[in-house]
Amino acid sequence: YIIVMLFILLLLFSSACFLFSFSSGDPGDRYMYFFSFFFFFCPFCWFLSFALLPPPLLSCFSFPLSFSPSFPQSKCKRFMYIINKYSDIVIFILLGNLYGRGASDNKAPVLAWIHAVEAYQTLSMDLPVNVKFVIEGMEETGSNGLDAMIMAQRDTFFSEVDYIIISDCGWLSRRPALTYGTRGNCYFFAEVEGPKQDLHSGVYGGTVIEPMTDLIGILDTLISPSGKILIPGIREAVAPLSDEEWKMYQDIQFDMDNYKNKIGVNQLMYSNKVDLLAHMWRYPTVSIHGIEGAFSDPGTKTVIPAKVTAKFSIRQVPDMDPAMVKKQVTDYLHSVFAKRKSPNKLKVTMVIGAKPWLADTHHPLYEAGKVAIKRVFNMDPDLIREGGTIPIARTFQDVTGKSIIMMPIGGFDDGLHSQNEKMSRYNYIEGTKLFIAYLNEVSQIKRTSV
Amino acid sequence: YIIVMLFILLLLFSSACFLFSFSSGDPGDRYMYFFSFFFFFCPFCWFLSFALLPPPLLSCFSFPLSFSPSFPQSKCKRFMYIINKYSDIVIFILLGNLYGRGASDNKAPVLAWIHAVEAYQTLSMDLPVNVKFVIEGMEETGSNGLDAMIMAQRDTFFSEVDYIIISDCGWLSRRPALTYGTRGNCYFFAEVEGPKQDLHSGVYGGTVIEPMTDLIGILDTLISPSGKILIPGIREAVAPLSDEEWKMYQDIQFDMDNYKNKIGVNQLMYSNKVDLLAHMWRYPTVSIHGIEGAFSDPGTKTVIPAKVTAKFSIRQVPDMDPAMVKKQVTDYLHSVFAKRKSPNKLKVTMVIGAKPWLADTHHPLYEAGKVAIKRVFNMDPDLIREGGTIPIARTFQDVTGKSIIMMPIGGFDDGLHSQNEKMSRYNYIEGTKLFIAYLNEVSQIKRTSV
Repeated sequence: YIIVMLFILLLLFSSACFLFSFSSGDPGDRYMYFFSFFFFFCPFCWFLSFALLPPPLLSCFSFPLSFSPSFPQSKCKRFMYIINKYSDIVIFILLGNLYGRGASDNKAPVLAWIHAVEAYQTLSMDLPVNVKFVIEGMEETGSNGLDAMIMAQRDTFFSEVDYIIISDCGWLSRRPALTYGTRGNCYFFAEVEGPKQDLHSGVYGGTVIEPMTDLIGILDTLISPSGKILIPGIREAVAPLSDEEWKMYQDIQFDMDNYKNKIGVNQLMYSNKVDLLAHMWRYPTVSIHGIEGAFSDPGTKTVIPAKVTAKFSIRQVPDMDPAMVKKQVTDYLHSVFAKRKSPNKLKVTMVIGAKPWLADTHHPLYEAGKVAIKRVFNMDPDLIREGGTIPIARTFQDVTGKSIIMMPIGGFDDGLHSQNEKMSRYNYIEGTKLFIAYLNEVSQIKRTSV
Repeated sequence: YIIVMLFILLLLFSSACFLFSFSSGDPGDRYMYFFSFFFFFCPFCWFLSFALLPPPLLSCFSFPLSFSPSFPQSKCKRFMYIINKYSDIVIFILLGNLYGRGASDNKAPVLAWIHAVEAYQTLSMDLPVNVKFVIEGMEETGSNGLDAMIMAQRDTFFSEVDYIIISDCGWLSRRPALTYGTRGNCYFFAEVEGPKQDLHSGVYGGTVIEPMTDLIGILDTLISPSGKILIPGIREAVAPLSDEEWKMYQDIQFDMDNYKNKIGVNQLMYSNKVDLLAHMWRYPTVSIHGIEGAFSDPGTKTVIPAKVTAKFSIRQVPDMDPAMVKKQVTDYLHSVFAKRKSPNKLKVTMVIGAKPWLADTHHPLYEAGKVAIKRVFNMDPDLIREGGTIPIARTFQDVTGKSIIMMPIGGFDDGLHSQNEKMSRYNYIEGTKLFIAYLNEVSQIKRTSV
């Protein structure tokens, strides 16, 4: 049987806020910054304090509707109520959900994996496979050094590892899912530089060719109103949708009305499920994130910005190649810019070039997952992809040469990176069971098939 | 002869920085904020300390090249060296120039007017006309209340006023100038709103119609790469360039190479002087200042902004009407937006609607100015316009019904609102002489011509 297993649990704070608020000096975020270090260097002490909550506490949870603001302190002294002014940095539990910044992305899944291991230990059963954890607390600040660490540990920590599991993802509906793909991401800066300093639009407006006008002009050539990417070569490189994929998407449980309500729009880019899922997962997208250097504060300012930098990204899918995309985008923007005959200078740089990741859903690792899900939930999983990027998946695959599975337990409506992020107790507890079952199933995989 | 004269001296700090830095909590700007109040409520005490600098001090100035960093303290004890960490908030004097934030825009012109009045008093001569000052220290924060004050004082402070003089402007070259027009300004917010909150571009990219893409799309329809305004009706409303104007522009002293060097570009929007001056002063311009709500910080963020607001403005010229422009812009953007068939919501608002101002250069007020300039500088003035907006000029004209002249003494290269703003001692001293001469010339205007 299997000798060594490695579980990769990416501990992801919902820290887009964290990352950017930190520089603003919000003391709450400094506090959180401290926590992320704490997790990184000493991950278990805090987790285990959760994992070892004694039974009387858990009984509190079975009457969630009786919770009142004063309840935790007055009625349940042993309730581990870690809450303060910055309460969103810890998980607290209310109305059947675990709330907190990063509750679902990715504190609860990390805990669930630890509970799974703990369950075997508590029952004095041998683990069916050996387990190693990698817990990463700095993903939202770019995971600096993680790639280098993985490469450095290839022949030591990772030497006997057979499989890699990532749980940094979520279901698409109330139905459990296995994730077999993520999109990559090519992130670009397009900088247009004109006068040597910002100018007053009254005094100079009409005499200079404004960098902002140039930048708007070239950005408008990236994508059509209907979402068609206009950069030559991009669409040609995309792998065509196979009949099998079409059928798989057709069978996936996905409520479009619910999806629309969740994000608060009354019309999506595509009106049928298959098109929508396909464009969410396996077609590229252009998003324009914003412009640096121009006036972005509230109020009015009559400035001609001297140098403006647009930030936009293109999500990558098979068979796109980031190096090729870099060339296509750069060449295209320069050719569009040249037509404007502007004296300003354009500089296009690709600052992120992450490849997509795609797994074979018929691999034994996935077959084991299907069995485990059937056992715990009594249904077949949705086989889904992620539109976002988990660059480390690709790194693990390239460096270790091992197969990867992504096994989510987060709910489709957990609100990652958003207000009131939560994980339901149902997903948390059943998810823990799933991980326990999965450890068992993986141990059944025939050694030859590795 | 003239009974009463009113001099309007707008005391303008170069306070775009001031306005926006203040909110950032820079203590230097808080200090400056204090100063602006100080000027506003007690304008003379500080000025007169400058005006009454004793002769031995002035003799220091006659050897400007002998200045060294240690000079002021060690060699010239009586030198009024007001400088500290925030030295740019006061005027200090070096190498023949008066440096300081707002030195030319508009501290020195205010002082020069006070010196002019002082000169008559020192010589025990009666002022040839009566003089009233209005000194405004809050223009860069929007001059809140100034319009209301002028209206309220129409029949009291302003009741016997015959003429209004504004010196909040500058020459176009080394040749003295009289200013006879300014452009107005219509400032717009165009807001596109989509999902109820920001979304992750990986997770949602491809499924939603992004507000940023819509906004870029409509902004790109405002103006062509060659500077042509594409909003229907705008160009049609602009008064045609008369032969007289063409000839006037042709005669104006204006060095295009110097202008290019100053702003650091190698190509301007127009390659000949008349076109350039015409588009600087008497044609409208569209400037896109920036976008609020999108990602504008350094670094990368993979966000789909939920609500983005573009800020752009159109400088107004005769015979444009801000109310009409508001309708033209709003209708046009909505029609362009409708073609995109986007489910997002567009809201266009005009937050500033300032009319242009234009004077008759053959008015006795201007004829007196020409004579005074001839007397002091022994040459005829350039008759120029300003591309920027001084909304209060129009308010004075509309409320009081009196004629206005703009008489600049600031140099063309003073760097208003920029680093190292300065006023040359030459302009400062000869400008003071000009004002003295002008008081005399104005007193000669025949009463009947008022």
